[in-house]
Amino acid sequence: MEQRISLITLGVRDMEAMAAFYEALDWIRVETQDGVIAFDLIGQTLGLYPLEKLAEDIGLPVEEMGKGATTFSYNVRTKEEVAPLLAKAEVAGGRILRPASDVFWGGYIGYFSDPEGNIWEVSHNPFSSLSEDGAFRWNGY
Amino acid sequence: MEQRISLITLGVRDMEAMAAFYEALDWIRVETQDGVIAFDLIGQTLGLYPLEKLAEDIGLPVEEMGKGATTFSYNVRTKEEVAPLLAKAEVAGGRILRPASDVFWGGYIGYFSDPEGNIWEVSHNPFSSLSEDGAFRWNGY
Repeated sequence: MEQRISLITLGVRDMEAMAAFYEALDWIRVETQDGVIAFDLIGQTLGLYPLEKLAEDIGLPVEEMGKGATTFSYNVRTKEEVAPLLAKAEVAGGRILRPASDVFWGGYIGYFSDPEGNIWEVSHNPFSSLSEDGAFRWNGY
Repeated sequence: MEQRISLITLGVRDMEAMAAFYEALDWIRVETQDGVIAFDLIGQTLGLYPLEKLAEDIGLPVEEMGKGATTFSYNVRTKEEVAPLLAKAEVAGGRILRPASDVFWGGYIGYFSDPEGNIWEVSHNPFSSLSEDGAFRWNGY
C-alpha cells in the first residue's frame, strides 16, 4: 500500500449547511454528480456525503460511524494567521475549541470544530515549513 | 483558507499496535519526537497521537472526541488491487467491513477498519485516474 489517502469523506447530516461552512472559508467546490460535494485539496479530495448513505455504502449501522477520533490540521506560514482563521471559522458557523495559544512543543495553535463536530487544528509549526504550494511533511520542505 | 489539510491526526488508544498495523501495510514511519508517530503522505502527514493527550491538547473531554463520521479512501489503479489489499489489511489486524464489490456509481470498492475503528475505503474509480505519483483529484489527472 503506497503512502497516500486519496479521499477524506465526512459523513454529513446537513449537506448544504456543511458545504456553506467550507465555502465561507473560501473553498471552491468541484462539479460533481452522485450527491457528493467535493473540494479538491493538494493531492487528495475532501468529500461531503450524507451520513446515512455513507453508512449504507459501508454496510454499517449509522451509530457505528465516526468511532475513530480524528482531527485535521491546517498549517499556516506565520503565527499571525492562527487567530484570524479561528475567528473566520466562528463567523462561518464553527466553534472555537481552543483559542490561539502557545503549545508545549514550540508551536502556536488553536482548534475549531465545523458545524457537525469535525475538529480542525490551525497550527503554526516553526519546525516544519510548508512547500511553496502549501504541502506539508513532518520534517518540512 | 487555502484548500489543503496538512495533518490528519488519529487519536489512538494503543500507539504501538496501531503503528504496527500501518507498518504491516508497508508504510514507513518518519523519525519524530514528542510522542507522535507520523507517516508522510502526498502533501500531508498522517499522525498517530495518544487519544487522551489529543483531547487535552484541544481542551475536550475524551468522550467528545471522534464525533465526526470520517472515512479515508485509498484509490488504486486497477480493480484487481482491491480484494488483495482488503485481505492484507485483515491479516494485519483490521476488519473487512465490505468485501470487494461493484458499487452503483460504476466503481469497484471495499471497506476495512483499522484496529481502532478508523474506516478506510479501497476504491477503483474508473472515472478518476491517479497522477503518476498517486495523487487524486475529483475529475482525475
